Amino acid sequence: MKILVAAFDPFGGEKINPALEAVKLLDNEIAGAEIIKLEIPTVFHKSADTMREKALEVKPDMILCVGQAGGRFALTPERVAINQDDARIEDNEGNQPIDVPIQEDGPPAYFSTLPIKAMVEKIKETGVPSAVSNTAGTFVCNHIMYQALYLTEKELPGVRAGFIHVPYIPEQVVDKPNQPAMSLEDIAKGLTGALEAMVEYRDKDDLKVIGGETH
Amino acid sequence: MKILVAAFDPFGGEKINPALEAVKLLDNEIAGAEIIKLEIPTVFHKSADTMREKALEVKPDMILCVGQAGGRFALTPERVAINQDDARIEDNEGNQPIDVPIQEDGPPAYFSTLPIKAMVEKIKETGVPSAVSNTAGTFVCNHIMYQALYLTEKELPGVRAGFIHVPYIPEQVVDKPNQPAMSLEDIAKGLTGALEAMVEYRDKDDLKVIGGETH
Amino acid sequence: MKILVAAFDPFGGEKINPALEAVKLLDNEIAGAEIIKLEIPTVFHKSADTMREKALEVKPDMILCVGQAGGRFALTPERVAINQDDARIEDNEGNQPIDVPIQEDGPPAYFSTLPIKAMVEKIKETGVPSAVSNTAGTFVCNHIMYQALYLTEKELPGVRAGFIHVPYIPEQVVDKPNQPAMSLEDIAKGLTGALEAMVEYRDKDDLKVIGGETH
Amino acid sequence: MKILVAAFDPFGGEKINPALEAVKLLDNEIAGAEIIKLEIPTVFHKSADTMREKALEVKPDMILCVGQAGGRFALTPERVAINQDDARIEDNEGNQPIDVPIQEDGPPAYFSTLPIKAMVEKIKETGVPSAVSNTAGTFVCNHIMYQALYLTEKELPGVRAGFIHVPYIPEQVVDKPNQPAMSLEDIAKGLTGALEAMVEYRDKDDLKVIGGETH
Repeated sequence: MKILVAAFDPFGGEKINPALEAVKLLDNEIAGAEIIKLEIPTVFHKSADTMREKALEVKPDMILCVGQAGGRFALTPERVAINQDDARIEDNEGNQPIDVPIQEDGPPAYFSTLPIKAMVEKIKETGVPSAVSNTAGTFVCNHIMYQALYLTEKELPGVRAGFIHVPYIPEQVVDKPNQPAMSLEDIAKGLTGALEAMVEYRDKDDLKVIGGETH
Repeated sequence: MKILVAAFDPFGGEKINPALEAVKLLDNEIAGAEIIKLEIPTVFHKSADTMREKALEVKPDMILCVGQAGGRFALTPERVAINQDDARIEDNEGNQPIDVPIQEDGPPAYFSTLPIKAMVEKIKETGVPSAVSNTAGTFVCNHIMYQALYLTEKELPGVRAGFIHVPYIPEQVVDKPNQPAMSLEDIAKGLTGALEAMVEYRDKDDLKVIGGETH
Repeated sequence: MKILVAAFDPFGGEKINPALEAVKLLDNEIAGAEIIKLEIPTVFHKSADTMREKALEVKPDMILCVGQAGGRFALTPERVAINQDDARIEDNEGNQPIDVPIQEDGPPAYFSTLPIKAMVEKIKETGVPSAVSNTAGTFVCNHIMYQALYLTEKELPGVRAGFIHVPYIPEQVVDKPNQPAMSLEDIAKGLTGALEAMVEYRDKDDLKVIGGETH
Repeated sequence: MKILVAAFDPFGGEKINPALEAVKLLDNEIAGAEIIKLEIPTVFHKSADTMREKALEVKPDMILCVGQAGGRFALTPERVAINQDDARIEDNEGNQPIDVPIQEDGPPAYFSTLPIKAMVEKIKETGVPSAVSNTAGTFVCNHIMYQALYLTEKELPGVRAGFIHVPYIPEQVVDKPNQPAMSLEDIAKGLTGALEAMVEYRDKDDLKVIGGETH
């Protein structure tokens, strides 16, 4: 089994992206699956092109995209990606789309085809906080998740795909008062748990456990 | 012009629902539009039945659903509703669906057909904090927003619909430390601004202004 | 009975100070006590001079100083003032003392001589959130509380004194995402409750109820 | 040079205390100083007795007490300890004093005699978030800091003493949503920086840098 793990480069004035650094720390084989690591640019559409090219080349069984969510306290597998770009800041090439569809012929949203509840449980078993998230925002993270699911629907049938957000690491918040952080080692440990769950549930339904939000 | 404003009854152990109380305070005419107020039960599907019955009766031009989001700091028009119920707590009749589609034949999501950016701007002009929200959760609030948009698509073409979340009021947080609250008067003032924007933008495109989130 | 209620003018780039605006809304008589209102400048020492002059003139039975605590969720009577100025920002005349004693011959701290637990209970009875605070910071709010208690110790024996912090009001946070706020009306309502408790407990010990913090 | 580092055992329903676990990870010599580690019980007065006995035995040059502050984002050297116990929860032997002086003949407060600003700077240099705190609460942490400073004033002249709070570690917040955490390794790294600053500034004035709070 092969899993493509794609992580963004730094953006928004940060010098590093903990998503990318944590992915670099992952073993090359997890739960028997080959882990293929890919750095993608924090740029609308170009990120998707880079991912598509690699995915068509390596023919993975699953795709996990990983991005930074500064301000979050936990590893958060995303439930859904919406067909809309609405950038609060510019991406790394100066694009700032406002309320623009990602794919004109795409559905309004895609649900993750990864076992998000099982991933949350497994991450927590490693001692790392985790929760389902119901919004990936409207920037490049939501964009790449939508694109991954559009890609698998259109060109890679049977391939499961989804996204997980990770917090800042401590060195990023040294001068940002009252911002949560998680060590790179813990992020990598949690991601490893997430990937183990993906392998275990590759051909099974996701866990039916409580994991929603009232709002 | 007629606007149906539907608000939930109390739930989750609360004695009141600020959404409902604030809607009661609204004028019966706002910006020339007749405001038709409706209380709906905090129950999956039954809430939608109540709304549908009233909407088919009064034939509104627009529908605004209003619900409580304890923990939020601002009035938050919702961008999108997803086709999934995932209840963290029971509704008022003991239902707790987990990862169940709302409508088997519905799309994965509906975007609000209300001018959410214009509503945010107008609410802020009244002196009340506001922001676009990218998740209405996975409980009855998301449910009713999805149902309102499903209803208008299937049975009430041309009718615009959407949802707005409101914070706790102070008396609800007297024994909840460090929880934000907003006075009923301010909630009603902000909702009035939101309804004015809905009237003004009834036949116009929404504002193209920054209002997204990186995650 | 006479109570001097002193509130700061705007500072830190704000156009208004909710402490001052709320004090203006107070009745001139509360629970039988005459309320004497005083605006004081957000300036180290000068604020204390203004307060001292007025206090020596009107000979109050109690002094309540009121200031803004942007970011707090509740009305917070302060437990203690420390003998140290340590300014994170400049005051309204450009002073920024760092780790300087307020009074060379003063004790390291003064405990409030107001019934802070009873004030919290009474404020909550009015429907407004409240809690004891264990730090008034190290800016002019802590400064004026220390000075009020130094003044009463040295020159106005038997006069009780203390400080209460109030949150932002909504119009101050319209462009500050995720900042708590409270309406002026609720702040005034809560302050009225606080003053009623001060009158009721003028010659009694404070309530012995839980109100501490683990840290 | 000898530094006594005293850390509390678990309390409040927690199975571990990150303060104690991090202290166990410290080197036995830091910046040339011998580090003497001591576990103290989370019990009013008994904690102080344990510390006093050890301090009189080993005659340290400095004392650093360390405790858990669940909910804080950073390592926070405390500025001041106040002469008051006010327990929100019971200590580990069921004591719950409310508004009781710690030492009848003690001053209202003691300022830390450790170089808190230099400690913050040094901790941040190690890549770990840190800030001065202006309240150690009113539970056993404030209690032991007050007792350490009372002890040094009365019986160990010239010995410097103070307190530092540390956050939860990730495994403690796995089931506490939206609570900040820090890895044990980072806590130990930050504490090491704090101890280095203590050695460096043993006979010097603290840094004069901004580090106060407006409230």
